[in-house]
Amino acid sequence: MVNRVTQQKYYFEDFSVGDVFVSDSYKMTKEEIKEFALKYDPQVFHIDEEQAEDTFFKGLSASGWHTAAVSMRLITESLPFADGVIGTSGEIKWPRPTRPGDVLHVKSTVKEMRPSRSKSDRGRVVVECETYNQHDELCQVFIANVLSFKRSKT
Amino acid sequence: MVNRVTQQKYYFEDFSVGDVFVSDSYKMTKEEIKEFALKYDPQVFHIDEEQAEDTFFKGLSASGWHTAAVSMRLITESLPFADGVIGTSGEIKWPRPTRPGDVLHVKSTVKEMRPSRSKSDRGRVVVECETYNQHDELCQVFIANVLSFKRSKT
Repeated sequence: MVNRVTQQKYYFEDFSVGDVFVSDSYKMTKEEIKEFALKYDPQVFHIDEEQAEDTFFKGLSASGWHTAAVSMRLITESLPFADGVIGTSGEIKWPRPTRPGDVLHVKSTVKEMRPSRSKSDRGRVVVECETYNQHDELCQVFIANVLSFKRSKT
Repeated sequence: MVNRVTQQKYYFEDFSVGDVFVSDSYKMTKEEIKEFALKYDPQVFHIDEEQAEDTFFKGLSASGWHTAAVSMRLITESLPFADGVIGTSGEIKWPRPTRPGDVLHVKSTVKEMRPSRSKSDRGRVVVECETYNQHDELCQVFIANVLSFKRSKT
């Protein structure tokens, strides 16, 4: 089942392996890339266009954590966890940097459902969140363990 | 060897398994927690103190991505990679939320050194970056794969 920004609220029972949720999009501006990096990742390849040319990135690129933050924004708008998107852990990778002007969207796929062994009111939903740019090139993969509560608390 | 904010620049050859780098500290204010969350993770437990009381977090807590961003700031100031801290992937977990007023610092430990098999000028340094609050409680663990270039490029 593919969903595009749903209003419905999902409890643990409502998710199935293979469910796909697609977010809206978000444009990464040069100004926001620099602003974020100046606060949280003030390295030359994230804050200075000219100097960035001589680095590994060969041009200005967003901090991976900026890509992650924007992806989270898109995820909160598209993943319908009833009690909020509460990630407890995950694996992240950045196959390619995000560049000024890139328009990002996130495709989230449910990979695994794990009922809690110790707490009967909840479980863990493993969601693979892929962040793509406007050329459908993969900029980030976050395989997230998301806490999810059951509708029936017994 | 334990380092506290060094000016020295390290190439791949300069790191050893067991090296530890300790960052300065960073205070998480209520204002910054809300400001970050309004942009990137606008969920009620990150933006509204009163409503946050009735959630899983039982009070206002920072977005995990905010904790990650602040940790990166501290890492850029304390990990001396000569060509910058370029993380390509990693595993992240948040054992405990960051709260307003928390003062964070990061302890980074080199866990593994992996010379590249295909490119002789570089390698991967696996660094475990632990983010602690002022009570020495663990708020985040990020096991990062960091790209590192060699001093000798041949």
